This record gives sequence, structure tokens and C-alpha cells, in this order.
Amino acid sequence: MNEGACFKARQEEYVRAVEGQLERSLGAPGGERGHYSVLIEAMGYSLLGAGKRLRAMLCLEFCRLGCGEWRRALPFAAAVEEVHAYSLIHDDLPCMDDDVLRRGKPSCHVRYGEWCALLAGDALLTLAFESALRDCDMAAVGAERAVQALRLLAQSAGCDGMVGGQALDLQAEESGARDGALLHETHALKTGALIRASCGMGAILGGMDGERLSGALRYADEIGLAFQITDDILDETSTPEEMGKSVGKDKKSGKTTYVTLYGIDRAREEAQACAGRAKAALLEMGVPRTEPFLYELAERIVTRSH
Amino acid sequence: MNEGACFKARQEEYVRAVEGQLERSLGAPGGERGHYSVLIEAMGYSLLGAGKRLRAMLCLEFCRLGCGEWRRALPFAAAVEEVHAYSLIHDDLPCMDDDVLRRGKPSCHVRYGEWCALLAGDALLTLAFESALRDCDMAAVGAERAVQALRLLAQSAGCDGMVGGQALDLQAEESGARDGALLHETHALKTGALIRASCGMGAILGGMDGERLSGALRYADEIGLAFQITDDILDETSTPEEMGKSVGKDKKSGKTTYVTLYGIDRAREEAQACAGRAKAALLEMGVPRTEPFLYELAERIVTRSH
Repeated sequence: MNEGACFKARQEEYVRAVEGQLERSLGAPGGERGHYSVLIEAMGYSLLGAGKRLRAMLCLEFCRLGCGEWRRALPFAAAVEEVHAYSLIHDDLPCMDDDVLRRGKPSCHVRYGEWCALLAGDALLTLAFESALRDCDMAAVGAERAVQALRLLAQSAGCDGMVGGQALDLQAEESGARDGALLHETHALKTGALIRASCGMGAILGGMDGERLSGALRYADEIGLAFQITDDILDETSTPEEMGKSVGKDKKSGKTTYVTLYGIDRAREEAQACAGRAKAALLEMGVPRTEPFLYELAERIVTRSH
Repeated sequence: MNEGACFKARQEEYVRAVEGQLERSLGAPGGERGHYSVLIEAMGYSLLGAGKRLRAMLCLEFCRLGCGEWRRALPFAAAVEEVHAYSLIHDDLPCMDDDVLRRGKPSCHVRYGEWCALLAGDALLTLAFESALRDCDMAAVGAERAVQALRLLAQSAGCDGMVGGQALDLQAEESGARDGALLHETHALKTGALIRASCGMGAILGGMDGERLSGALRYADEIGLAFQITDDILDETSTPEEMGKSVGKDKKSGKTTYVTLYGIDRAREEAQACAGRAKAALLEMGVPRTEPFLYELAERIVTRSH
């Protein structure tokens, strides 16, 4: 198999495993849940069978590189996807970004109404911690590492991580302006922190410490930035059909993005430079080129078309 | 000291300790948080210096009864108050109960705007897990019991607990009707589950298992129901000034409550019967009458005026 085929095979294995874990984690509507099945349905609508599962893949692959046993990270990979799904639901609400399209279909609140979407988000965030604590193989992972991994997730998702970044982003929308430093801080928190948690949790669960754990976090920071710059480029150059979400909103609202800041060409160069530094971090932490998945992933993040 | 004075001294000690823990858990705005200080302020506005801290007290006292060391449960007592505070913020949002008054002051979204309140709620829920995982004395508690306690919190707060109950409540508001069984299910989830988690976490952290843990959960279920019935009575008989929140809304909206279901007199009897069964559960699990705090608390829940 060539590298592309290898990548695809592993990607498919990971995505399949994560989808299965997410389904088990959520459970089915009906039964004892009969009276609030609509809540469970709304959670599933936004969680299952959608998304690229980038965060989950990062978590699983770093765990595999650390200890060979990627399945041990599955409950945590699912948790980070649950946190991501909740953040998208709340981001799309009328009082936030007010977006009607997500992952190629109507946003959760468009489909289920506002209060149900709000609660589905709340419940997905809670489910992340519940299911990781429940499904983790404590004997294999060790309670101490499980606690360390979940602390990283909570810290990255909260007010000094993702939610802080959402607040910064909405403030900028209201005030209509931000400089490069604030743009960078916003995305490092809003998008970067959860990608950092994904890589860091995988590394921790795989038994990595010290230099290797720092290397994983450095990789995370670089691809997080590459991801966001590429998102800003695609927001300018892509269609809603390709992206599965609304595009061009930042431009319309006059918000500073990496494209308004750098121009398209330099933004592309910056994204490539990030991918380069991400690969350098892998080399430094001793990930051999014969383990190409994360090298390839860094490349694909900047060359993706959606 | 007589029983009342004893109760008050312990209550004040617990409340003071919890407020301190909550302040440390949240941290201050400003510093590195300068750009999103408004988010931290909104979290503090709804979290600090308000509320009766019933849930925290239950957690601390059950831990003390179990092992004598109630301070070991402080991070978990704070966590359950953080979950409670987030649920009130989201409950008050316009797409939910649309309430402008809470704990005697303007609701979070009235004071800080809707998106900021939504995010403050999200961040408080996340903070509950972050700070419990961070501040827990793992050496004293043991990672396994810490994990067991947090699992109970997550499970009680999520779609099959508090959030499920919120969904049931809002569905009843839309459809305008519910029978006694559905009313009971709603409150067992919406209010009861978190009270259950408070008692259960305290018992777990205090080293209780088996019969004693079941007893703590039985006590929780009875006072949870007593609390809700009393809330329904006060909603009918009290003023917003006394309650610190809007009252009479259920009556106006034609929603079934324990008062519409039973009438005021029988509702009072039912609440008293719950308190009685709660005390019986304490006796059965071996809590001596020389430890009167939880006996007294059960009584106060049904005789409170706000």
C-alpha cells in the first residue's frame, strides 16, 4: 500500500471505532427515556455519523504511538468529540453565531427548537465526562492517568480554554475589530485548546511523559493554528455545499481573520509553515517516518478542501 | 448550645468553607484572563455569595459522618454547587424559563447579555469537573473513589438526570399538561438527581459502601421530594422578595404542580411525610441522634419560608 492508502485504512478504522463508541456512550432513545426521547434524539442528531473526527483520531494515534494500545483511549476520544459537538450546537444558537447550517444539515436548534438544542449541548458536555469515567479501562490505564487526562480535557474546554475563546470571538463580533495578537489568542483558545487536549490525552493515556508529552502538545499547537488559518481561507474561497456550513460570514461582518490580516497567499504560506513545524515536533519526539499517520495528517489539514 | 444553635454553627462553618473553595476554584478575572474577564465576572456573579449551599452541605456532612474528614469532600461540594449554578443560569435564559430574577438579583443574562450567560453556564459546568479533578486530595481520597464520586455527579447532572428533567419540564410547559407520575419523574430528575449526587458523593468520599451508601441515597430521594413539594407550596404562598426569584409562574401557565395535584394542605402533609422517611433512613443507616445535623436539615427543608 502507498502512504495515501495506508492513511485511509487507519483513518477508517479509527472513525469506525469512534462512531461505535459514541453510539454506545449515548445509548438509544426510548425505554426508560421515553418521556425525554426528544433530548436524546437531538444529542444523537448532532453527535453521530458526522464530522471528520479529527480530534478523536489525534487522541487515538498518540495513544497508539505511546503504548501500542489505541483502544484504551477510545472513551476519551469519544469524550473530546462530545465536547466538540456540544460546542458546535451552542455556537450555532441565535444568541451566539446564529447559524442555520452545520455539517451539511439544519443546525440542531433549527431542527429541534432552541431549548432542546441548548439542553442537548449541556447534556453532551456532561456525557463527555460521564462516559469517559464509566467506560475507561481503569485497570489498563491506571486511575491516576485517567484523572490527568480528564483534567486536561476539562481545563482545555472551559473558561481558560474553548469557552474563553468563544467569548473572545463574540466580543470581537460586537466591537467589530481585533488585531493579530487577539485573533491568535482567540483561536488558540477556541479551536486550539481542544486539539491540544486531544493530542495530550492520547499521549498521557499512551504513557508519555516529559519531553514526549511536550512534543505532542507542540504538534497540537501547530496543527491547531494550521487548521484555523485553513478554515479562514476556506471561508473565503469555498461554498456552503463543500463546507457543510455557512461561509463568508466573517467577511460580511468585517471581522479580522487570518485572510484579512495576511492576505490569501501569505495565509497559505503560514499554514504550510505550521504544518512543517508540526512535523518537526514529531521528529524531535522520536516518531519515526515509518509511522506516517500524523505526518500525513498535518499535511492534509492544510491541503483539505472542506 | 441547643440544637438550633449547633445546627447554625455547623451550617456557617460549611458555608464559609464552600464559599472559599468556590472562590479559589473560579479564580479572579484580570491577569492573563484580561481579554475575557467579562466571562469570569459573569461566572462569579451567578456562583459566589449566593444560594443556601444545601447541596454542598449534604456532601460535606455525609463525608464527615463517614470518615470524620469533611474537608476532603470540599472540591466535590464546590463542584455540585457549580453544576447547580450553571443549571440556574441556563434555566433562566429566554429560550428556557425566561426569568429575570434569581437569588434576589437580575438573572445572569439580564445583567451580562445572553451569549455571555450561555457561555458562563457552559464554563461553570466544565469548571465543576476541572476543579474537582484538580483540587481533590487523591492521596487521602483515593483515585478510585474520586472517579466513582465524579461519575455519580456526571450521571446525575446529564441527560438521564438533571438535564433530562429540564427537558421534561419544558415539554410539559409546551403541552400544558402532566399527570402525577410525570410530575414526579420530572422533579426526581430535575431537582432530585443533583441532591442525590450531593449525598452520594459525600458518602462515597467518606468511605461508605453498600447499605450505608444506599441509606444516604434514600435520604437524598426523600428530602429531594420534600424540597420540591415545599418549592411548589412557596411558589403559591410566597412573594418574589421572600424567594429571591419569580413566583406564581406555574399557576399562571396552568402547569401541574404538587399544589394543583394535592391541594396545599395535603401537599404540606406529603412534604412532612417525606421528611419523616428521610429521618428513618438516617436511623436505619446508623446515624445516631447525637449527630443531629441531617435530621434537623430534613425538618428545615419543609418548614423553610424561602
